[in-house]
Amino acid sequence: MVYLDNGATTKPRKEVVEEYVKNCEEGFFNPSAVYSSAFNLSKKIDGVRSLILDALSGDEYKDRVVFTSGATEANNLAIFGSATNRTKKYLFSVGEHPSVYNCAQELLTRGYNVQFIPLSNTGEVDYDAFEKLCDKDTCFVSTMFVNNETGAINDLYRIRNIIDSKNPNCIFHVDGVQSFCKLPLSVKKCKINLLSMSAHKIAGLKGVGALFISNKVNLKNISFGGGQEKGLRSGTVNAGGILAMGKAVELANRDMTKNLEKIGKLKTLLLENLYKNFKDKFICASTEKGSPYVVSLMFKGIKGEVLVRKLDSNGVIVGTGSACSANKVGNRILESMGYSKDQVVGAVRVSFGFDSTEEDVIEFCNKLKECY
Amino acid sequence: MVYLDNGATTKPRKEVVEEYVKNCEEGFFNPSAVYSSAFNLSKKIDGVRSLILDALSGDEYKDRVVFTSGATEANNLAIFGSATNRTKKYLFSVGEHPSVYNCAQELLTRGYNVQFIPLSNTGEVDYDAFEKLCDKDTCFVSTMFVNNETGAINDLYRIRNIIDSKNPNCIFHVDGVQSFCKLPLSVKKCKINLLSMSAHKIAGLKGVGALFISNKVNLKNISFGGGQEKGLRSGTVNAGGILAMGKAVELANRDMTKNLEKIGKLKTLLLENLYKNFKDKFICASTEKGSPYVVSLMFKGIKGEVLVRKLDSNGVIVGTGSACSANKVGNRILESMGYSKDQVVGAVRVSFGFDSTEEDVIEFCNKLKECY
Repeated sequence: MVYLDNGATTKPRKEVVEEYVKNCEEGFFNPSAVYSSAFNLSKKIDGVRSLILDALSGDEYKDRVVFTSGATEANNLAIFGSATNRTKKYLFSVGEHPSVYNCAQELLTRGYNVQFIPLSNTGEVDYDAFEKLCDKDTCFVSTMFVNNETGAINDLYRIRNIIDSKNPNCIFHVDGVQSFCKLPLSVKKCKINLLSMSAHKIAGLKGVGALFISNKVNLKNISFGGGQEKGLRSGTVNAGGILAMGKAVELANRDMTKNLEKIGKLKTLLLENLYKNFKDKFICASTEKGSPYVVSLMFKGIKGEVLVRKLDSNGVIVGTGSACSANKVGNRILESMGYSKDQVVGAVRVSFGFDSTEEDVIEFCNKLKECY
Repeated sequence: MVYLDNGATTKPRKEVVEEYVKNCEEGFFNPSAVYSSAFNLSKKIDGVRSLILDALSGDEYKDRVVFTSGATEANNLAIFGSATNRTKKYLFSVGEHPSVYNCAQELLTRGYNVQFIPLSNTGEVDYDAFEKLCDKDTCFVSTMFVNNETGAINDLYRIRNIIDSKNPNCIFHVDGVQSFCKLPLSVKKCKINLLSMSAHKIAGLKGVGALFISNKVNLKNISFGGGQEKGLRSGTVNAGGILAMGKAVELANRDMTKNLEKIGKLKTLLLENLYKNFKDKFICASTEKGSPYVVSLMFKGIKGEVLVRKLDSNGVIVGTGSACSANKVGNRILESMGYSKDQVVGAVRVSFGFDSTEEDVIEFCNKLKECY
């Protein structure tokens, strides 16, 4: 089987699963308890916070990392935990993942002043439009680093500079799910206040994510209970999942540069092959500048979903845009970039993982030729 | 090591961990994707819903089970997902777990009409007081089945009958965390509308829980994103954790009667030993009628926390009341039952798991003698 839907989820690494199983055997305690085994576990969890801050170049003495059940919860916490003032302006890129975009829609419903930043035809935020929208009353801006459907990379430094020129106190939230441990980023240099992460996109486990919270942010909790995670996220702490995330972060961060180079070559190989064999039969919505981990293709004269099912029955797994959205109609992101509904219907997403190989790319191209 | 803090969390069963590891290897797909491996996974997850409905004697053609990151999220979803009318009355027992009690407090802060039902000296809901509080305007009642600190069992049939005599349309929510797969309960016969569960309290994994939703309830989602779980719980579905929960439910439900009998004998053995050796030096806040899985003891002249730490350094792990509450002051539940602050300070909770043994009880009693 060739698996090229790593933007949806990844196969957990062997080392990650081993770490988890070890915790089930030896460290299954409730980390909030008062006895020593629980205390040791709690210290290990703090170690994972440090690993994450290290991967983000955060300040480990002041900034915080709160563990959640995944990036959706982290995004909900970042947004609803920050939204306290109905007179201020909240800006979201229109290219955001549903777990951000639908929070923005909910804020609108609740009477907040929410506005959306359009995308340019590269899939990046339209920076000029953003500069016009952002003003001294803007208190919250949310843009992802890497787009989950196209791989487009937003220039976060440029965005932060625009914010600073209007309102330096504005909170800057970044959905880092597709970039975390894949592309370098310093939350400190870029003055990012909130950054959401997911473990299962970097060969960790599902059901575990985290939110980076800079010391400048005073977040409200959005769920209520035992007051774990310093009151920001109640519920028995998923110690095993967090330690397994630590292992995934450690390895992915260690190999970040090497992996980025390798995946870059796979993207080049893929596009060379496609341009040779499918010349006029597809459009690539991903640019050269984008993250190599995600490649968005639109095939002509066939529905993406049909092509994905056909490839599936031939042992090759790719995605149809985002798998995160359970009941999708159309494609908000590709349409925002200027593609027509007819083009967008043929969308297929190829997304690489750390263990993807040249053979995977070649097999995908061969099967595609048969299936198309 | 003797582990008697199973009310806080349990060691995952071997079969549960095996199921999880198998999923990491073979079934790591995103269940929301359109290809066949994802579809098969999605079917297996539906199988776990059926197992849970079976364990609760629910109607598998009409009722629903929504998977969450744990019981805290399930309780938050049940409560905030139901709270839509500020003119109606919401009743909560004062003995609820913080993940219910603090939601009730938050509703109060938001201007809802929230009232608390006192406990009797047995730790059960004060049924007479409840009958007075409950009226035709009461739209939501939340009482747990088994109390997590004392093991007190609320008579849910009696509570439902009182509700029905006042307002049959009132939603009845039950926190079933300490009873699920331990004590028999039919949500159908008892007309329970919402019931919260946790996997890690029945030898499943942390980070996985569920909410039973009867077909009579029209719940609102409280988080926003990809619309998974029919819109009620967004975020990549934690397939592996859910399948592992299925294994835990299957085994615990199969052995429920046998386990209940076994644990009942352990409770008797424990109390016989304590009454013999510590006659006047402790009070037992748990009654004979309560769940044998949880035994609440209050020792005189020593702080519970000190005793727990001392026992810990002698290889015996027990709890200090509830480990779920990270920053606890006093003990709301024991004080509601009429115990003084002086008595409550000596509280120690012994809680049994499916694999607890007579040897564990004897070892606890021996070490207690040394440590006290």
